[in-house]
Amino acid sequence: MPDKWVYSFGGDLTEGRADMRELLGGKGANLAEMSSIGLPVPAGFTITTEVCTHYYGNENTYPDSLKKEVLEAIKLLEKEMGAGFGDIENPLLVSVRSGARVSMPGMMDTVLNLGLNDETVEGLAKKSGDARFAWDSYRRFIMMYGDVVLGVAHHDFEDILDSHKRDEDITKDTDVTAEGWKGVVAEFKELVERELGAPFPDAPEEQLWGAIGAVFGSWMVPRAMTYRTIHDIPHDWGTAVNVQAMVFGNMGEDCATGVAFTRDPANGENYFYGEYLVNAQGEDVVAGIRTPQSLTIQGKEKEGSRLPAMEEIMPEVFCQLNDVRHKLEKHYQDMQDIEFTVQQGKLYMLQTRSGKRTTAAALKIAVDMVDEGLITQEEALLRVDPQALDQLLHPTLDPMAHKNVLTKGLPASPGAACGAVYFSADDAETKAGEGIKVILCRRETSPEDIHGMHAAEGILTSRGGMTSHAAVVARGMGRPCVAGAGSIQMDYEEKKMIIGEAEIKEGDIVTIDGTTGEAMLGEVPTIQPQLSDDFNTIMGWADEHRRMTVRANAETPLDAETAKKFGAAGIGLCRTEHMFFDPKRIQNVREMIFSTNAQYRRDALDKLLPAQREDFIALFKIMEGLPITIRLLDPPLHEFLPHSEEDIQNFADTAGFETEKVRRRLGELHEINPMLGHRGCRLGVTYPEIYEMQARAIIEAAIEVQGAIPEIMIPLVATRKELALMKTLVEDTAKEVFTEKNATVEYTIGTMIELPRAALTADDIAEEAAFFSFGTNDLTQTALGLSRDDSANFMPDYIREGIFAKDPFATLDREGVGQLVQMAADKGRSARPDIKLGICGEHGGDPSSIEFCEDVGLDYVSCSPYRVPIARLAAAQASIKSGRRLGKSQTQPERRAA
Amino acid sequence: MPDKWVYSFGGDLTEGRADMRELLGGKGANLAEMSSIGLPVPAGFTITTEVCTHYYGNENTYPDSLKKEVLEAIKLLEKEMGAGFGDIENPLLVSVRSGARVSMPGMMDTVLNLGLNDETVEGLAKKSGDARFAWDSYRRFIMMYGDVVLGVAHHDFEDILDSHKRDEDITKDTDVTAEGWKGVVAEFKELVERELGAPFPDAPEEQLWGAIGAVFGSWMVPRAMTYRTIHDIPHDWGTAVNVQAMVFGNMGEDCATGVAFTRDPANGENYFYGEYLVNAQGEDVVAGIRTPQSLTIQGKEKEGSRLPAMEEIMPEVFCQLNDVRHKLEKHYQDMQDIEFTVQQGKLYMLQTRSGKRTTAAALKIAVDMVDEGLITQEEALLRVDPQALDQLLHPTLDPMAHKNVLTKGLPASPGAACGAVYFSADDAETKAGEGIKVILCRRETSPEDIHGMHAAEGILTSRGGMTSHAAVVARGMGRPCVAGAGSIQMDYEEKKMIIGEAEIKEGDIVTIDGTTGEAMLGEVPTIQPQLSDDFNTIMGWADEHRRMTVRANAETPLDAETAKKFGAAGIGLCRTEHMFFDPKRIQNVREMIFSTNAQYRRDALDKLLPAQREDFIALFKIMEGLPITIRLLDPPLHEFLPHSEEDIQNFADTAGFETEKVRRRLGELHEINPMLGHRGCRLGVTYPEIYEMQARAIIEAAIEVQGAIPEIMIPLVATRKELALMKTLVEDTAKEVFTEKNATVEYTIGTMIELPRAALTADDIAEEAAFFSFGTNDLTQTALGLSRDDSANFMPDYIREGIFAKDPFATLDREGVGQLVQMAADKGRSARPDIKLGICGEHGGDPSSIEFCEDVGLDYVSCSPYRVPIARLAAAQASIKSGRRLGKSQTQPERRAA
Repeated sequence: MPDKWVYSFGGDLTEGRADMRELLGGKGANLAEMSSIGLPVPAGFTITTEVCTHYYGNENTYPDSLKKEVLEAIKLLEKEMGAGFGDIENPLLVSVRSGARVSMPGMMDTVLNLGLNDETVEGLAKKSGDARFAWDSYRRFIMMYGDVVLGVAHHDFEDILDSHKRDEDITKDTDVTAEGWKGVVAEFKELVERELGAPFPDAPEEQLWGAIGAVFGSWMVPRAMTYRTIHDIPHDWGTAVNVQAMVFGNMGEDCATGVAFTRDPANGENYFYGEYLVNAQGEDVVAGIRTPQSLTIQGKEKEGSRLPAMEEIMPEVFCQLNDVRHKLEKHYQDMQDIEFTVQQGKLYMLQTRSGKRTTAAALKIAVDMVDEGLITQEEALLRVDPQALDQLLHPTLDPMAHKNVLTKGLPASPGAACGAVYFSADDAETKAGEGIKVILCRRETSPEDIHGMHAAEGILTSRGGMTSHAAVVARGMGRPCVAGAGSIQMDYEEKKMIIGEAEIKEGDIVTIDGTTGEAMLGEVPTIQPQLSDDFNTIMGWADEHRRMTVRANAETPLDAETAKKFGAAGIGLCRTEHMFFDPKRIQNVREMIFSTNAQYRRDALDKLLPAQREDFIALFKIMEGLPITIRLLDPPLHEFLPHSEEDIQNFADTAGFETEKVRRRLGELHEINPMLGHRGCRLGVTYPEIYEMQARAIIEAAIEVQGAIPEIMIPLVATRKELALMKTLVEDTAKEVFTEKNATVEYTIGTMIELPRAALTADDIAEEAAFFSFGTNDLTQTALGLSRDDSANFMPDYIREGIFAKDPFATLDREGVGQLVQMAADKGRSARPDIKLGICGEHGGDPSSIEFCEDVGLDYVSCSPYRVPIARLAAAQASIKSGRRLGKSQTQPERRAA
Repeated sequence: MPDKWVYSFGGDLTEGRADMRELLGGKGANLAEMSSIGLPVPAGFTITTEVCTHYYGNENTYPDSLKKEVLEAIKLLEKEMGAGFGDIENPLLVSVRSGARVSMPGMMDTVLNLGLNDETVEGLAKKSGDARFAWDSYRRFIMMYGDVVLGVAHHDFEDILDSHKRDEDITKDTDVTAEGWKGVVAEFKELVERELGAPFPDAPEEQLWGAIGAVFGSWMVPRAMTYRTIHDIPHDWGTAVNVQAMVFGNMGEDCATGVAFTRDPANGENYFYGEYLVNAQGEDVVAGIRTPQSLTIQGKEKEGSRLPAMEEIMPEVFCQLNDVRHKLEKHYQDMQDIEFTVQQGKLYMLQTRSGKRTTAAALKIAVDMVDEGLITQEEALLRVDPQALDQLLHPTLDPMAHKNVLTKGLPASPGAACGAVYFSADDAETKAGEGIKVILCRRETSPEDIHGMHAAEGILTSRGGMTSHAAVVARGMGRPCVAGAGSIQMDYEEKKMIIGEAEIKEGDIVTIDGTTGEAMLGEVPTIQPQLSDDFNTIMGWADEHRRMTVRANAETPLDAETAKKFGAAGIGLCRTEHMFFDPKRIQNVREMIFSTNAQYRRDALDKLLPAQREDFIALFKIMEGLPITIRLLDPPLHEFLPHSEEDIQNFADTAGFETEKVRRRLGELHEINPMLGHRGCRLGVTYPEIYEMQARAIIEAAIEVQGAIPEIMIPLVATRKELALMKTLVEDTAKEVFTEKNATVEYTIGTMIELPRAALTADDIAEEAAFFSFGTNDLTQTALGLSRDDSANFMPDYIREGIFAKDPFATLDREGVGQLVQMAADKGRSARPDIKLGICGEHGGDPSSIEFCEDVGLDYVSCSPYRVPIARLAAAQASIKSGRRLGKSQTQPERRAA
């Protein structure tokens, strides 16, 4: 049990600090911090988040000593302010606000002007010399308190106010006189008494406890809970309550209120960006009834405004505020979002917090602050959210545009795209060929749809998760994708989709946002990406600070070019099967599958060899001097066969088979759980000629291209013996080629660790492997017994129930899958100290998972090309954090000194 | 490199021992052992298995020092036998025989009478006083050597012999004279010279090295390799070569040769069971040209033979042989299979080895030997192969019957069955109702086929592995099953199946042998099982010696009765979903699945509750006082839906739905990898009302039946949170029932460990679990990424390549899956020392896997009812072995003393 529940701030006694955010909430901690660095903060106190936890843990009761501590804090506050709570002559008025660890804007309740009653309102009138102001404040208090604390509907108060204005024949609140407000107040109090059967509480202390209870109560209202669920905020964090002396920006023309950012949050420019209003309360700035004015002359000119800047009409206060701005930035070493009030010429700071900013601004501010000597490169790197870089790499929706959101699916591949919907890959390709922008809509995609996905601007599916085929392939291609939008009914027959009431037909225009998962009707304007110098500066610093290298998963020349452009240090996963789906080759692949013996299979494979060799030549040329990890054939053979009646007929006709024969083979190859079926090296074991052809293509290509660095990867290994067999096969093939060509080339052979058994026996397997690449997609599927294609049905329930904090296919499950990775890394190194370790699952592009990879000490991460910059930054952050944990103030000082 | 390659035996110098089987092979080790206990063994020497390994590891060459060692051994042998290799007067003749660690009868080559040539044959004639014998021996040698070593076809020799006999106008070999054989020998040698372009080797030493090379060479011939693959013998064991002085049972009327078992191998009776022939060679006894005679008068009478027993006509030698019999049994403490030759009145022992026996005999011999004080109970228990008990529990094919084998599949559920084939569960049930014995033939079975499987005598499938649905369910029911017979084409439309040329139509009779995997045309007579007193004695001893308890997997009253009859100490796995497939309930289950909200689901479940409660009441009554582990619903819901067009139509009609609605729901529930899909506790999380109903049914039933011990098991748990949620749900339901009924009952809640993640986080999960039951079927599927339903396609290749020593679904993969089990057991106990640990996968009935469970220290194993006796014995063997490893001579001495 804590021995202290209440912390004072703002006067002679300031008990909190900025780093006490968990205890005091963000607002309370920062008020204390500002106060202790000498900024003008109205005095007050914070009731800690622990009281909230206690409240919910003890049937909505407070700790015993709370009352005493609050009373003492009020005594202190009265002394500080030279005013008394309930004092008729000189009343102390306070605000009561929530303040959680992280900001939850608008989610919880606030009460202002607390302490007013029929007697103190007269004291306020006298003190301010403005009776109208006093009665206006009083009626605002009753409205707020009545609504928030007492539960009287807000619109009932509004009705009274409206009828009063009608009676007086006026339209604006500002036209209501002091007497008018007095009448309104009386009616408000009657309303409350009628509704509750008890009078409005007069005693300030009773008012205070009511407000405190309301704030704590608002922590658990549905909208707050929903907000927290969406933003991954634990429900047990609780909120603090801040009680603070009121200051008024609306006491006259020497009063003002405003909000500001210490730099421009849109582009990061180092100028004082803010708005204010004279003789107004904070809510007026936000409400948009009056047009806010710019703080600075520079701002005024930028916006082409005629209204005077604060710099002009309140130069002294502005100067003071500008000092505060610099002081805060220097103190917090970050751009701040501040709120202030000027009461009768005196500046009061009401809030400061780290300012939200666009990614472009984040980059500029980070780079500038390093230049200004405010922060180190390391701190600059930690300031930028790697995920947010996606915004810079893909088109984004214009935030100002109107959106008619049809449904929401998973944000499967970032970026926004707009086009006409088509429901088959062939249609998508045809229409794209005619110059039409296309959104390909499918229940789910399969490798047969690749050409349509390539042709489309974006992909929308009604099934599948974050690592479904559509999602993975779209990310690889850099195409926006919304996946698993379960409320869509795709109707291929009628070429339409139904979403609730809406029916979207072939050719209709939709926009998808793969960053949010939204699908919208019609065209929503998008903004094209641009890479700034700041981006390049940050990336350069990231490269200096990271230990792990970053590779890309790529198999087409286009992917490889993109990967290289984004700074990939090689290809970590080249999926050879994607090359088999090429329409020109699929016929040969199918012939191979229909071969009844090894010789016929070999004949069919011989026809594929030249094309496969050309694939590798192209990649080796692009990635010259950089390693390429090439995975031999992985998917089960049935994935290459036709499935629809039409395709079966076509294939049978072309191949000269009976359709019955095709259907029989389909039946033979059908698998109940293809994920756990006849795939990976199991194909190599049963049909060695397939891997032989691939090994030959790789080695022949490598001989042809100067600087080729092939790393041949055997997939789905569960036992050492499998790898040993496949290794011998590859080595024998390589020897043959060397003899034929009278040339040699360096190459290595390794394996994916994607089955729990492989991780468990990694010491044994490492005896045969020059490298391990962690295939954490499949490792997650097997370790958790969870099909990524089928989990969308229940994953939302699992997240909601807190069973998984995050989708384990997006962020690596450290506790389970992570144990296997750690174990395999340790065992692998124990058997072969120089083994190269990397990750090539989707997690390779996820910052949290990358941090894990750093902790395990992997050598590289590999991700889809468009995530390479994200991974580079995330790897640098992971290095820095890991170095700090180890007590190094700077990572790699030797390199930076050089 | 070993320093010794050759070991002598049989004379003054015997260098080997019985426990050197790995080095000397079984035959060589036992010849040495017999020699060293003073039995008359013709002298000789053994070339070790390490020479074989060296030979294949070094491009078919021998170790350098081998030649010298062999020559020395021959010198010694010449001295022992007082004869000389190539000595014209007194030639030494030897046999050259293979001898692997385990017997591979008839698989490898043998050469007899080696050392004969045109000169030594005269010496043999003189020495034996029988020229015909000498020349007959010589021609036999040339035939054997020519065939085995020189590769001249056996039938070419036969042709010469036949033409000779035609010329002489005789029909039997025995009528050929000495001169005749001389002529044949000349022609044989000509044949060899013609074929090889070189004369038949005359020099005994050259002959010897030729024969040694041939024996080593025969280790790798295809038939030997196939034999080893079938019998799980590693190819790298190699064979030894035994070179031994020849003794002759065909040198006259004072000569004989024979084979014997020290007890009756068919029933275990303690009498001297054997056959002999006067004046004959070993091959004559086996060849069946002359009728062998019984050794004993008792045997002669038993067989109603008129031919004299050895006991009668060679009483002294018999007496000596009978002494040898007792000496061998006492020495080896086991029933022996022996070979002997009497040469001119002198007895020679040529071989002894542990005798093969029927399971009934094994039981009787083990029990008798304990009574006789020869062995301890522990040794008796170790002598019986637990797997072989299956023979006693199921009908077996009459071994004498003719079999027309159509094809071979997997031996999925033991026992033989015969009946008319039907291709649907409904037809099978209908026909069985008419009193027809039915074999249900399906591509694969699903839970919808259960009634047909129950009605059938046996099940034959063309797909699926050892743990496919058909296999698991058939074992549970005790129905013979041949699964995954891939060469069968099932044609449901035409109601027939095609196997190669054969077409089997509905109603045709077939016989299946689930112990061997064979399917046969027509009826093959079977033998019904009988349980002897010996069986019960052994089982009683097993129960005294085992540490683990044995439970059964059972869900029907019939299964539970069977389990109890076979001595199960409870039910380790009661699969509640099997109760859902009952035709009377499936409609309600389907209504539940089609419910659009929790309330409708609850309504449908309410209709299922009474039936489910009755299920549990029945089981609790049968198993009174014994625990029942009840697993809540596990399979994905789509398993309960209709799939064929006809079933869909029927269901839609009955339920009053549009068929379109049914199809849509089928589409929604379709899963790409159902094994990794929406099943197990994932159902409980998303549809809590299902588990609530089941928990209620269990608790209500337990209150009703005195002595009920329910253990409620949550399946497919991957995280602690899942278990915690489901535990709360069950506990809340139990509390409700307790209040309603005003009664309570003890129950526990635990989980299956069947996912790698559960094993990895077992310490965490154990905080919520009173017990773990290892579901090693699914754990194998996930740890190895191997679908048991799809692995049949490549598993044969995997076994052949030695990737898996055994099918990992039949015998637990200790290296991989075993690590997870060990880890989970350790972590589970670390968090909860009294946690109860068991196994309920198919491995629970596999002796090798049971041994592993003992090593890990599990509390119990659970298996299908018909395997309970096997598991009881295997558990006892595991306890004994484990005790011995720990240096205890007897397990549980305190109990046995009491």
